[in-house]
Amino acid sequence: MELIKVGGKLAPFIKEPEQFLGKDVDFKGVVYRIKDLGNFSFIHVSTAKGILQCIVEGELGEVKEGSAVHIWGTVKKAEIKDKFITPRNIEIQVKKLEVLSTPEASLPFDITKKKLNINNDVKFDLRMISMRYPKERAIFKIQEGLVQGLRNYFVAEGCTEIRTPKIVKAGAEGGANIFEIEYFGEKAYLTQSPQFYKEFCAGVFERVFEIAPVFRAEKHNTNRHLSEYTSVDVELGNIESFHEIMEFEVGALQSAFNNLKENYQYELELSGVELSGFSEIPVLKFHEVKEIIKKEYKVDNLKEHDLSPFEENKICEYVKKETGSEFVFVTHYPSSKRPFYAKDDPENSEETLSFDLLYKGVEITTGGQRIHDYNELILKMKQRGMRPEEFEFFSVAHKYGLLPHGGFGMGLERLTQKVIGLDNVKSATMFPRDVHRLTP
Amino acid sequence: MELIKVGGKLAPFIKEPEQFLGKDVDFKGVVYRIKDLGNFSFIHVSTAKGILQCIVEGELGEVKEGSAVHIWGTVKKAEIKDKFITPRNIEIQVKKLEVLSTPEASLPFDITKKKLNINNDVKFDLRMISMRYPKERAIFKIQEGLVQGLRNYFVAEGCTEIRTPKIVKAGAEGGANIFEIEYFGEKAYLTQSPQFYKEFCAGVFERVFEIAPVFRAEKHNTNRHLSEYTSVDVELGNIESFHEIMEFEVGALQSAFNNLKENYQYELELSGVELSGFSEIPVLKFHEVKEIIKKEYKVDNLKEHDLSPFEENKICEYVKKETGSEFVFVTHYPSSKRPFYAKDDPENSEETLSFDLLYKGVEITTGGQRIHDYNELILKMKQRGMRPEEFEFFSVAHKYGLLPHGGFGMGLERLTQKVIGLDNVKSATMFPRDVHRLTP
Repeated sequence: MELIKVGGKLAPFIKEPEQFLGKDVDFKGVVYRIKDLGNFSFIHVSTAKGILQCIVEGELGEVKEGSAVHIWGTVKKAEIKDKFITPRNIEIQVKKLEVLSTPEASLPFDITKKKLNINNDVKFDLRMISMRYPKERAIFKIQEGLVQGLRNYFVAEGCTEIRTPKIVKAGAEGGANIFEIEYFGEKAYLTQSPQFYKEFCAGVFERVFEIAPVFRAEKHNTNRHLSEYTSVDVELGNIESFHEIMEFEVGALQSAFNNLKENYQYELELSGVELSGFSEIPVLKFHEVKEIIKKEYKVDNLKEHDLSPFEENKICEYVKKETGSEFVFVTHYPSSKRPFYAKDDPENSEETLSFDLLYKGVEITTGGQRIHDYNELILKMKQRGMRPEEFEFFSVAHKYGLLPHGGFGMGLERLTQKVIGLDNVKSATMFPRDVHRLTP
Repeated sequence: MELIKVGGKLAPFIKEPEQFLGKDVDFKGVVYRIKDLGNFSFIHVSTAKGILQCIVEGELGEVKEGSAVHIWGTVKKAEIKDKFITPRNIEIQVKKLEVLSTPEASLPFDITKKKLNINNDVKFDLRMISMRYPKERAIFKIQEGLVQGLRNYFVAEGCTEIRTPKIVKAGAEGGANIFEIEYFGEKAYLTQSPQFYKEFCAGVFERVFEIAPVFRAEKHNTNRHLSEYTSVDVELGNIESFHEIMEFEVGALQSAFNNLKENYQYELELSGVELSGFSEIPVLKFHEVKEIIKKEYKVDNLKEHDLSPFEENKICEYVKKETGSEFVFVTHYPSSKRPFYAKDDPENSEETLSFDLLYKGVEITTGGQRIHDYNELILKMKQRGMRPEEFEFFSVAHKYGLLPHGGFGMGLERLTQKVIGLDNVKSATMFPRDVHRLTP
């Protein structure tokens, strides 16, 4: 019998091109840009790792922008200024070029210029093309880098990676923004949050995380909302205080930022992002935020039990001015605005042991300690007029013993958006879904 | 303003308990088992990393199985035989024990014995409890280890991690087993596969992967099917032959198995799994499989254009006997049974440049080269009686140029099931979903 051996590997030259200076190499890629200068041409070739500069002397032949090519050549030293190219200290003197495939049509917009001159509708309608623009591609490399940095931290700190169901019988958040599906003749829903399941899993593995899609039927088309997004969920068992959860999140975000700085320098530069380091994040209580907003911005919302987008924005502005931090934790949200499973402050039952993390003007995380005691949970449900028997599949975990626990959920697309400074969360989503968009 | 610093870290003792021999430590966990021996008691305490043996002299006090506890004690050398305990070369002489929380009720079944005596219905109904049984927990640690090993390989070989939508306008696989949802007044579906999107992304990043849920409305309740499962998807650009994809998968599986052997020894031992190493996988053509089945097992299915579960099982048995391999690639599936985007063999248009990977009797992967040429794709759709205009959102990528590419999708739960030797794929799923099961 024939045997398939390990292979299909990325060419070593593409992995570490600078190691091949002076050597003859061959590699494959897609022609991103051609600059014909008469006697010779620059061909910029997109690979799995970046865009390489190649020089072809004489006639170019059949090759076009968008052609997949196989190139043989010699690696030479270079000093390239164009930020789209990486690495910029080498180029390839082409000896032979073979065209592997050729596009049927030229692109409907130019992806080789400094600016991509299309509106958001075209950008999303032709996402498979617009992502080929290096600055667009960089967004999703940065997103990948954030995920890697977060995941590395979670694993290093003893979290087990879990996989929870997306089709559920009851929503964790309740409310109207839930998608209904027909499930073999039964009503079911798309999950809004893995909340119940990560609590179950904290009772098994103590510390868990999941990075997976969640669904919200958001009827408003804003620059902050998606009907499908990636939730970075963590749940930590055996906590003594919900401060431990915030401390854990500081560490996780630090790890994510460090991973970007170490491994995504090209993409950060291309996106014009200068990441500031941090090892601590300021914290304010909910009522302190309300008072600061009143005092500093003359808006009196003291009776509102939530923060408006305006207030989130302004408190970030204030904290940045006062401390230099782009992040701020807001704690002790009113119990009335938090879900039933949130743990009330034993010293003031109108407030919860909960927090939001705001970053550059928007909420990117909601978290807090949960009720772990069975009787406390049943009582809270009754106080809210809920029928505990409907949530027996959840409270059964508490009945048979759950450890003190809490966690957070972070919106990956919002984090990506704000790291890069994009004006819309959809721009930080490969294939966004909203009330008007279901394709591609 | 107060500041939240990095913290909430897992105790160093729990990370590397053997490093603390002879030292005084404190840690938290949940009491898994109590063995009261009169003068002293064994308390086995479940932590984020495993189950530790603790010894309490004298009276036990209020502590119960299921209690969350904070323990202070001295780490001593030990030789423990019980396979549920890890590590087995140390134990903790307890100086002080504080109960942090206590269960409302005793567990409905015993999770401390060698065997968990419950049927599958109870196991799944009370998943949050049954997963606390060490052998059940081990299943999902092994699943985590497989994912880590795969992901490490994908990243090392230059794949970008992508996130594609789960709510889609058209299914990639077609057919009846697709869940419909109401999307703001429009009909939409839950994705059966990220196929279209990973092809788009191969045109952007060259090599991509995604590990995410997919959905199939499987009306048959078998031990092979789930209505929601985790698909490990890879797409590689600039391939010369679909053999590269198989070679890549051999490397990825090797990395997954090696990660288990290096980092999940406790769980493998607990599950009674001895993983055999491999660096190559035998390959047979589809028609060769049919001929072997006819010759060896006297079953003549030569005219059927697919392999039956019986045939998958038997060909694995045959290959194991002939070569010792538990894996076998089957290539060149008939075009009639593969989706429209599959690339036909230029030498025989009735066969595709495709493969399945079978492992211990079942298909765990489907893969192959795709059509990258626009005109070839349009022609194939027409030949199949499809209306190309309905798939314009897909073929637009081909129109503007796609590189030669292909990939595979692997069912994570089936892989986990077969690695461990479980009799049902649902047992390799934390919270399985099938035609009869929507909870918990």
